Amino acid sequence: MIEFDHTTLGQRVLFARGQAVDNIVSAVGDLSASRVLLVADSFVTSLADEMAHRVPVVARIDDVVQHVPVANGRAAVDLARLEAVDAVVCIGGGSSTGLAKFVARDTGIPIVAVPTTFAGSEATDVWGQTDGDRKTTGSDPKVLPRVVVYDAALFASLPARLAVASGLNAVAHAVDAFWAPRADPIDTALGTEGLRALVPGLRAMSENPDNLDAREATLYGAYLAAVAFASAGSALHHKICHVLGGAFGLSHADTHAVVLPYVMDFNGPAAPDAARRVSDALGGSSAARGLYDLRRDLGVVDSLSQLGMPEDGIDTAAERIIAAVPASNPRPVALADLRTLLAAAWAGDPIDEQERV
Amino acid sequence: MIEFDHTTLGQRVLFARGQAVDNIVSAVGDLSASRVLLVADSFVTSLADEMAHRVPVVARIDDVVQHVPVANGRAAVDLARLEAVDAVVCIGGGSSTGLAKFVARDTGIPIVAVPTTFAGSEATDVWGQTDGDRKTTGSDPKVLPRVVVYDAALFASLPARLAVASGLNAVAHAVDAFWAPRADPIDTALGTEGLRALVPGLRAMSENPDNLDAREATLYGAYLAAVAFASAGSALHHKICHVLGGAFGLSHADTHAVVLPYVMDFNGPAAPDAARRVSDALGGSSAARGLYDLRRDLGVVDSLSQLGMPEDGIDTAAERIIAAVPASNPRPVALADLRTLLAAAWAGDPIDEQERV
Repeated sequence: MIEFDHTTLGQRVLFARGQAVDNIVSAVGDLSASRVLLVADSFVTSLADEMAHRVPVVARIDDVVQHVPVANGRAAVDLARLEAVDAVVCIGGGSSTGLAKFVARDTGIPIVAVPTTFAGSEATDVWGQTDGDRKTTGSDPKVLPRVVVYDAALFASLPARLAVASGLNAVAHAVDAFWAPRADPIDTALGTEGLRALVPGLRAMSENPDNLDAREATLYGAYLAAVAFASAGSALHHKICHVLGGAFGLSHADTHAVVLPYVMDFNGPAAPDAARRVSDALGGSSAARGLYDLRRDLGVVDSLSQLGMPEDGIDTAAERIIAAVPASNPRPVALADLRTLLAAAWAGDPIDEQERV
Repeated sequence: MIEFDHTTLGQRVLFARGQAVDNIVSAVGDLSASRVLLVADSFVTSLADEMAHRVPVVARIDDVVQHVPVANGRAAVDLARLEAVDAVVCIGGGSSTGLAKFVARDTGIPIVAVPTTFAGSEATDVWGQTDGDRKTTGSDPKVLPRVVVYDAALFASLPARLAVASGLNAVAHAVDAFWAPRADPIDTALGTEGLRALVPGLRAMSENPDNLDAREATLYGAYLAAVAFASAGSALHHKICHVLGGAFGLSHADTHAVVLPYVMDFNGPAAPDAARRVSDALGGSSAARGLYDLRRDLGVVDSLSQLGMPEDGIDTAAERIIAAVPASNPRPVALADLRTLLAAAWAGDPIDEQERV
């Protein structure tokens, strides 16, 4: 029996290499905007300058701070109101998009997002902010960018190591969406197609960091994975990584890369359709072993131990995670299961090839 | 290189067997509607009655006429205004949805659509109306239903022959979307997943018309195919069927079923990715031969000749179609190609097994 409740978020996506500025101009025109707030992090100054000549920018923020501090968000809202802004264009990574979302949430001003990483925030209606060391997130239809402009040329200068880690993060979005709390067949379809693009894209990018086709395929796959993840919600893998990141300050993307194969190994036998989709995308090996091989082939860090997690943190982490395991997980999760999973990820144990489902 | 401009239409889909009334109540509640216009064709009177006890219906239209005559549309708009309606719930096939869309287009009142066929109009922002023998269509964001309620139990009484023909129509939506004017990778992903559900669903429904799981899978696949088609636009196959339907009054769904394998046979060699996706869904035979076998296995009519098209109509039809061939078609189409294609479809010629791409 098929049963689901799926909300498709309405959004226009303009995807074209080398055409970011033209497409921003077109998107701003479609919104009939005449007073634009430009948010652009320091990596994209020249693109921002070029754009500022062609759309009516009345205010500009270049000092984008990670994790959207509330004070920065409020200052941006004040600026937007003072200048009677009617559209926000944000160019950059998750922090630029995040600041634009803060403004949109408090003012209703529409966003045109131009991402330069594979993080995927542009495809979601989720906002985040930090107040001191307290991070808050929420969802609001107003913060979903109306138009997303993707241009693979903007990714040419993203360092290869960051690009691979960010792409593996996107793989985790797609995989975890298969068994997430609001997972539905639409998310599954988009996640599957995302993996079909991400896996060969990441492999080709790792072989040759200058391969722009590979970066473009990864970008496309990351977009689909973000749409699937936004709809399906956060599942076991993301709960584990969230706890590990918070408790031990581990690097976000690397933690995802290390943990994912072990979650697949644990959940796969109870989620045969998801396992088959993942192994199909990986080219035939079992899903968990395939994800393990992918990470190793891409040369990402091998274990939580290498990332700096203390071995005696395993028990504490397992206890925090157990409270957050979603009811949707395809099999029950006991404290001992989490300890075993974390111990394997801590040591970077090889995953055995299983019979392919 | 990947390049596309994709607009995702925002919509909520509630898909659950036997829960149509509960989900309508929930959808009307979410819209905060207190004065509902109910449009329900005569096949669903008892469901409409049950619903009318649970949501605040202030007006009801039961005489739904095919193809949305303008006079009926205007009368419905007048009724909606007179009764200060704030939501339209439509239950039925394409004509019920069509009448609700007429009202939404002229008043902006939101729609909750409850389909009882696989036609897919509920997933599109396209409206249609007829004025005498003139049919007009257009698109407008206001006519896209805000919420779609799918309930496979409503399909239990759809006659098997109609269900199969309507399901093959959905297959045509998915296939033609692969090479349509606005085709993009998102449409491809959704169309692929649609076929993965439609093909086994239709086969199982044909074996046992009372198999509700099969009807449900077909419904789910038809929804995805409609979303893909709505985004990608009308391509060669639909242009051919449109001309044949208009010129010779041929049955809509049957014409689609007969013509599709020949279009696949013609376009397949120039569209290897689409051909592979179709043949994967069909279980391994070549795409065109697989579609031909599917139609035959399902016991649908075999040729345009059987549908009543005169043989001397082939030339006229080819000339009308050539003017409508989209530039996006994966290979150029000459008048002689169309004559050959139509002659094969007219005679119901078998399609040779090709080497699988």
